[in-house]
Amino acid sequence: MSDVNALVNNVAVSSRVRLARNINGYTFPVKAGAERLSEIIKPVYNELSKIGNFKLYLMKDKNSVEAHALKEEHLISADLIQNTGSGAAIISDDKTISVMVNEEDHIREQCLLKGFNLMAAYNNIDRVDDILSKKLSFAFDKELGYLTSCPTNLGTGMRASVMLFLPAITMNNSINAIINAVGKMGMTIRGVYGEGSNAEGYMYQVSNQVSLGQSEFDIIRNVEGTVLKICEAEQNARKQMLENDPYGVKDMVYRAYGILTNCIKINSAEFMKLIAYIKLGAALGLLKINDEHVLNELINKMQPANITLAAGRNLSASERDIYRADCCAKLLNELVDKKSIKR
Amino acid sequence: MSDVNALVNNVAVSSRVRLARNINGYTFPVKAGAERLSEIIKPVYNELSKIGNFKLYLMKDKNSVEAHALKEEHLISADLIQNTGSGAAIISDDKTISVMVNEEDHIREQCLLKGFNLMAAYNNIDRVDDILSKKLSFAFDKELGYLTSCPTNLGTGMRASVMLFLPAITMNNSINAIINAVGKMGMTIRGVYGEGSNAEGYMYQVSNQVSLGQSEFDIIRNVEGTVLKICEAEQNARKQMLENDPYGVKDMVYRAYGILTNCIKINSAEFMKLIAYIKLGAALGLLKINDEHVLNELINKMQPANITLAAGRNLSASERDIYRADCCAKLLNELVDKKSIKR
Repeated sequence: MSDVNALVNNVAVSSRVRLARNINGYTFPVKAGAERLSEIIKPVYNELSKIGNFKLYLMKDKNSVEAHALKEEHLISADLIQNTGSGAAIISDDKTISVMVNEEDHIREQCLLKGFNLMAAYNNIDRVDDILSKKLSFAFDKELGYLTSCPTNLGTGMRASVMLFLPAITMNNSINAIINAVGKMGMTIRGVYGEGSNAEGYMYQVSNQVSLGQSEFDIIRNVEGTVLKICEAEQNARKQMLENDPYGVKDMVYRAYGILTNCIKINSAEFMKLIAYIKLGAALGLLKINDEHVLNELINKMQPANITLAAGRNLSASERDIYRADCCAKLLNELVDKKSIKR
Repeated sequence: MSDVNALVNNVAVSSRVRLARNINGYTFPVKAGAERLSEIIKPVYNELSKIGNFKLYLMKDKNSVEAHALKEEHLISADLIQNTGSGAAIISDDKTISVMVNEEDHIREQCLLKGFNLMAAYNNIDRVDDILSKKLSFAFDKELGYLTSCPTNLGTGMRASVMLFLPAITMNNSINAIINAVGKMGMTIRGVYGEGSNAEGYMYQVSNQVSLGQSEFDIIRNVEGTVLKICEAEQNARKQMLENDPYGVKDMVYRAYGILTNCIKINSAEFMKLIAYIKLGAALGLLKINDEHVLNELINKMQPANITLAAGRNLSASERDIYRADCCAKLLNELVDKKSIKR
């Protein structure tokens, strides 16, 4: 297990498992009316409330900023925000469990955990699924498995994904070859913010393409195997990068630190790039970050809707740039151990 | 006088007066032989040594790096370096007085002082001129004044110049109009490193165009008047700049500080740009520099030949970039008062 830890360390950011479910007697959300679909929300919320502290977010009540902030935290999808009739999200206080109601399917159950942790995420969401399945009659076919709005989700209805930080294989241009190779393994990899070698912040998500014909356990094992191969390529590329151009890499990392702790305004794209250099620097031992997860959360917190929420009012783009610079400088001054910077 | 100080403060970097002289009985350097011209060196050195501590630099003895280092410090010219036959420089230990022998003229006497100080520079070099004129027979015509190799230097043989730091009128694109206006006043202004709006480090030199038909005192008064007008334009443009875009200006200055104190390598062009932002920031009160002259000297010290001399060996361009970054980070960490940075 320590080998696995070494491989995924500073590469695997978070793990997510989601299950798509639909309810017998209800038409799929895309065709059904809002009034009828809204009936689903209450029983889901009631059942979840029995096992923990959950908050209910109705898309019709949420202004767009609050809903987009949840999306930026990867708790709901853009599609759910569009459904201002019957769309709802029921989210645990620790934000690890999120159940979307009336997105593409009636119910989408998700567990999102930090680090490389797919099995734990599956176990958590499986428990949620058990509880909901006792109250609600899920549409299930003996041959096809769980019935879903889109055929790609048929079967287990499961999507297992891991978010990966891949700066080195992006910078050395091997990412596109890896995207192709992963595709042939029945997996898909895409940029979380932008595609391919333009993935902002070098953040990617690997997930299974097909959910039919394999058990949940097999899917997880396959995604894990793919993730480990990508992590190995990334770790090797990082070592190579530092060996090939130690001054260049240190320069990139320490300049990022210098800019982020001193700038007065910064746009989202530059922020994403420079924070990635800081994370890479930490991974390469060029600087020490007291809490890596706080840094990863900062990336969500610096997205436009989260900034607007934190500021308590609508900000112009240039006001957001100033706010972002200020938050970032304060946080990095706390997070980065200055003594760890060896020029 | 305090008004003048306020105007020239953080704009006028240094003041220089130079006198061109030639000796009766010797052909101008461009046509004479090295052996004959070399006779001039010793008496000049002997006379100067009577009034202070001077070092003699023979261009034939100097390897190109040492000579170029003197040029980077504005103590000798590129033309002198070319004259490896009879070229020589006699420079005071405090580097305020430099006498070039066998450049374009037999003798070029220069005094270079910090700040806005033309009269003092003139008085110093006039004393040197008096002493040399007693020993050497200077070529002088009652109508034309001092005879010089190039007719533009006839008359007083004097060039009075002030080095100015003009970031604001360069950035707001009024520099070219000012260059034109100054030309009509019989003055000339040019970039110290590069021309016009491409002047590296925003450093310019203002000087008289003509040395005939005016007294030394009139020339100095005219250059001073022109300098004060330019300083006023620059100070106004700085105020305007900070008023128009306070966040943008602070961002530019503090990023420069963040990069210069953290980078691992930096090329000459970027260094010149960022050091200029630091100087501008100090002028605008955005940060405090303990010793402005040390910062101005850093610009000379970071030129290629000075770096090579300090390192004690030939460095590749990328080695120089690393050396420059290291020196700069160390010095700025000492020079800039961190508490003065108010985000």
